[in-house]
Amino acid sequence: MCPVRPVRAAGDRAESGRFPRRRAGNLWPMSVLARRGDLLRLSTLFVRTLREDPADAEVDSHRLLVRAGYIRRAAPGIYTWLPLGLRVLAKVEAIVREEMDAIGGQEVHFPALLPREPYEATGRWAEYGPNLFRLQDRKRADYLLAPTHEEMFTLLVKDLYSSYKDLPLTLYQIQTKYRDEARPRAGLIRGREFVMKDSYSFDTTDAGLDAAYQRHRDAYERIFQRLGLEYVIVSAMSGAMGGSRSEEFLSPSPIGEDTFVRSAGGYAANVEAVVTPVPEPIAYDDAPAAHVENTPDTPTIDTLVALANAKHPRPDREWTAADTLKNVVLALTQPDGTRELLVIGVPGDREVDMKRVEAALAPAEAEAAGDADFARHPELVKGYIGPAVLGPQGAQVTAADGTTSSAITYLLDPRIVPGTRWITGANASGRHVFDLVAGRDFTADGTIEAAEVRAGDPAPDGSGPLELARGIEMGHIFQLGRKYAQALGLTVLDENGKQVVVTMGSYGVGVTRALAALAEAHHDERGLAWPAHVAPAHVHVVATGKGAEVFEAADALAQALAARGVEVVYDDRPKVSPGVKFADAELLGVPLLVVVGRGLADGVVEVRPRAGQARQVPVADAVAAVTEQVEALLA
Amino acid sequence: MCPVRPVRAAGDRAESGRFPRRRAGNLWPMSVLARRGDLLRLSTLFVRTLREDPADAEVDSHRLLVRAGYIRRAAPGIYTWLPLGLRVLAKVEAIVREEMDAIGGQEVHFPALLPREPYEATGRWAEYGPNLFRLQDRKRADYLLAPTHEEMFTLLVKDLYSSYKDLPLTLYQIQTKYRDEARPRAGLIRGREFVMKDSYSFDTTDAGLDAAYQRHRDAYERIFQRLGLEYVIVSAMSGAMGGSRSEEFLSPSPIGEDTFVRSAGGYAANVEAVVTPVPEPIAYDDAPAAHVENTPDTPTIDTLVALANAKHPRPDREWTAADTLKNVVLALTQPDGTRELLVIGVPGDREVDMKRVEAALAPAEAEAAGDADFARHPELVKGYIGPAVLGPQGAQVTAADGTTSSAITYLLDPRIVPGTRWITGANASGRHVFDLVAGRDFTADGTIEAAEVRAGDPAPDGSGPLELARGIEMGHIFQLGRKYAQALGLTVLDENGKQVVVTMGSYGVGVTRALAALAEAHHDERGLAWPAHVAPAHVHVVATGKGAEVFEAADALAQALAARGVEVVYDDRPKVSPGVKFADAELLGVPLLVVVGRGLADGVVEVRPRAGQARQVPVADAVAAVTEQVEALLA
Repeated sequence: MCPVRPVRAAGDRAESGRFPRRRAGNLWPMSVLARRGDLLRLSTLFVRTLREDPADAEVDSHRLLVRAGYIRRAAPGIYTWLPLGLRVLAKVEAIVREEMDAIGGQEVHFPALLPREPYEATGRWAEYGPNLFRLQDRKRADYLLAPTHEEMFTLLVKDLYSSYKDLPLTLYQIQTKYRDEARPRAGLIRGREFVMKDSYSFDTTDAGLDAAYQRHRDAYERIFQRLGLEYVIVSAMSGAMGGSRSEEFLSPSPIGEDTFVRSAGGYAANVEAVVTPVPEPIAYDDAPAAHVENTPDTPTIDTLVALANAKHPRPDREWTAADTLKNVVLALTQPDGTRELLVIGVPGDREVDMKRVEAALAPAEAEAAGDADFARHPELVKGYIGPAVLGPQGAQVTAADGTTSSAITYLLDPRIVPGTRWITGANASGRHVFDLVAGRDFTADGTIEAAEVRAGDPAPDGSGPLELARGIEMGHIFQLGRKYAQALGLTVLDENGKQVVVTMGSYGVGVTRALAALAEAHHDERGLAWPAHVAPAHVHVVATGKGAEVFEAADALAQALAARGVEVVYDDRPKVSPGVKFADAELLGVPLLVVVGRGLADGVVEVRPRAGQARQVPVADAVAAVTEQVEALLA
Repeated sequence: MCPVRPVRAAGDRAESGRFPRRRAGNLWPMSVLARRGDLLRLSTLFVRTLREDPADAEVDSHRLLVRAGYIRRAAPGIYTWLPLGLRVLAKVEAIVREEMDAIGGQEVHFPALLPREPYEATGRWAEYGPNLFRLQDRKRADYLLAPTHEEMFTLLVKDLYSSYKDLPLTLYQIQTKYRDEARPRAGLIRGREFVMKDSYSFDTTDAGLDAAYQRHRDAYERIFQRLGLEYVIVSAMSGAMGGSRSEEFLSPSPIGEDTFVRSAGGYAANVEAVVTPVPEPIAYDDAPAAHVENTPDTPTIDTLVALANAKHPRPDREWTAADTLKNVVLALTQPDGTRELLVIGVPGDREVDMKRVEAALAPAEAEAAGDADFARHPELVKGYIGPAVLGPQGAQVTAADGTTSSAITYLLDPRIVPGTRWITGANASGRHVFDLVAGRDFTADGTIEAAEVRAGDPAPDGSGPLELARGIEMGHIFQLGRKYAQALGLTVLDENGKQVVVTMGSYGVGVTRALAALAEAHHDERGLAWPAHVAPAHVHVVATGKGAEVFEAADALAQALAARGVEVVYDDRPKVSPGVKFADAELLGVPLLVVVGRGLADGVVEVRPRAGQARQVPVADAVAAVTEQVEALLA
């Protein structure tokens, strides 16, 4: 080894003056967004607007973000961020970061590429099924691209902390996550590579967890308010995450994938989480005995109800679909790959909602049973299935052809309480049984929240009828409890020197998805219309006309605004028509438009909010007036 | 669909006053680093210092960054960033970002998860070999975790741009990259998931590329100067990247993986890039005829030279190792998996440098030939291999046992010019040939830069003898030329309406690696010692003693400093001894230490640079004095 001789020492560089520098005495470095003088000239900015919608765009946010040159597709569900998009993303991240810091969250950053073992320990390596991107390194060790980081945070805290005195603790990260969605769709709304803020709270007591949960809930309200997003907080299922209390923050939107309900009295829940109010049991001492009737050609509820009213009329009123019991056969696949059938009985006027089924049965995945399933189960006569050949588990049932088999698991809608009377299948083609009484004539293995929720259904808390709406899930907060800490051995010593298992919360904000939700909520037919706090710039200056004086005046105005800290997009393209420039401005969606053009001869420029009235401002007052208006927008 | 009714409108949130907010009228959001009042209390900060070195730490930066609680290993070559580490990383990124913006770079952000096709088009899917993390999605489509993004940037520009008027263009990103290193080592210095700044320039002319290259070169100098890193710029091979001109920015360090050379006259190059000055050919009309001699038991150069001097003395001087020609057999594996042998002839006083071989033959990988290789080639007599059984390609050679085969490719060190005379193997055990004259008695398939470079070798440019040193590669700038644009069809219309292929540059800074290089360059035996611009905080306030007044005074000081924009670590731990607190402060490496303790009784606190003299400062002046000193450090 030769001794190392410094060739150039640090710190001796000449200040050239050509490049903006940190000002001496300014103690905090400027970030991507903290640069005074952001002046984005469209003549050089890396952006191209598109007149045509991208072929794969189904929703407005996707369509407009691509057309306006904010993002670009790299692969299905995987996007590249162009300069304008990256600016909006950075602003969204900054708001999330500030609010997480404000509740005492400490920022860390985990790898995206993680070893299998921790996810194996909690069972999620298998539970995630095909949604997990898995890979092997050159030594054939198993890795994954993390969809969420509960395991790693748990292990990190276990690694560093050992006493109750170290808690409570809240850690967070803003990080790129991966999920191999079966159907990536709607651009950023359901992507395969996306940015999330995920945070985790660690407490020794349930009360501590409640407090951490509430702090996050409050922080999330502030985040979405500052972003300029309407939101609804709904009760949610915790699903594959385990744990107990759980709520979602939804942005109401017709293109949302989540359906939620709410009542005038304040109840709100994700449709998966709606609990059906259970009616009181009905006395059935006077009920007639069950009787099987011929019901040819009635494979559907409608045909059955019509025939029942025609041939077996009910004395007091007409039969309706609600009097029938529909038994739906599903195939469940467990994370370990085992597959079994399940029958769900619901009132015939309701469909089975597969999302509610999957939420109720997670991590198993459900699908409609197929022909092969029916072939293996001759006791299941399609269209005429009845409880007599179904659970409870362990029972032996006999098919019409005389073969016997173990009963398939049978779960009922909670409305099917003892004493309710039903028309349902008699397990033979063209035959149904009438006056079959629950609790007297049949039982099942249990109940399941599987029936669709409908507008007008009563809220579980008695707060009135429900209405339904759709929303984009932007945030989700969970009380995980001790599941992960238990699985991974995270304990601390308490005041008495006893090891106690830590209780955890897990909290997520879909950062890239929130950006898409913003675009969904803030646009019109002509383009995007960003709230000022997240817009890629505050002002869009357009120079229209051919004279050099127009460009000189516009340039001076843009520079003067930038010097005052206003972020400016300046359309300085020399040979582009005013029409194209205005169309691009409306597509890009910067909140304030300033037009330097014909008015210049009269000493005025035009100032116009993205969706508002134009006003004429004297050139001499323009910088002050526009700055003031920007400050008002940001206040 | 029910109509969506806003539940909470944006903007109606109450300011609680409990949480810091953006100040009205402040037009730019604050980032992770731009928060006034950063006050990190060690009683709650998520950090634990370790007294013991981690078992796998080979180098100081790794050892100290883990011990001081900046990073934590998640898997081999994959690290988690804890709060202090993340703060340093963000500051390094901010400096890189500012300098890239200053040369007109526009920031974008590409996915890490990318489809195979673009990398297939340029051949790199195969060329990267096992260094690439490859995976399949649920539809069995091939993906990779990108090690670098030439293809994607090329395609993006192709997608958006079409005219010479759109150029020049420089795009960059600061992004997480992946490389499945065979031997991840030295913590952040050679990791498998790491952060890079990569940028790409696009020009229509070679002069434009030269200018973009020079702008990057200048920006990199400013980046490393601002970071507080010594650096050497060395000529480099462009290796698997293709292209022509290429330089590396190395941080001189004994633990660096790169060996470089430099001369007093200003030559500097990566050892792989050193070009051997070729001597003039020598007239060989008077040279004696080659003659084979018995040289029993001389499988090594040393034994051969000793025997030659004893049995076949040279009249004018002693034989030395430099008179012998050593033929080294290597096995080359091409990216497509094909494997072939290659023999390299070098003067016997030099080793073959495998890094130089691999650089010369990239993307093929080289290793020493094994026993199986020799078994398949009976003409290669280990220890006695001579040119007679080697190339040029296509020749037939006969082994001692009479079998014939095609000659193995044979490449020579450039010093072996026509007329040079050699002792070398005679392809039979115990026999060597003397006075074998290059150009007269043997030729080869060409030359190769394979021999080791040694201190004292002449610089290729005649600027004096070389010295060797080691360095950490922090940056690399390449003139790619038209290779990628050609492969992926990136052309633009020139002034005459003709399609021209774009010429590109590719420029990288290892952001996480630069952070490690900073830790290597700035530490002592007690811990880290960050330059102020990248330190996680500016001041480390330590409260020592048991009285409440000490903690009250320290707390007030810490808060007052934070309120002035100074970033403060405050050791407020109540039951930790002063010795432990000082040791932790020195381990953490914040540039300025302020001790509030015994001196308080005399109305003073102690102010001490991380590696400097302490001074006593009156309590009343402490805030002003410390702020001033921080400003001086950041000036």
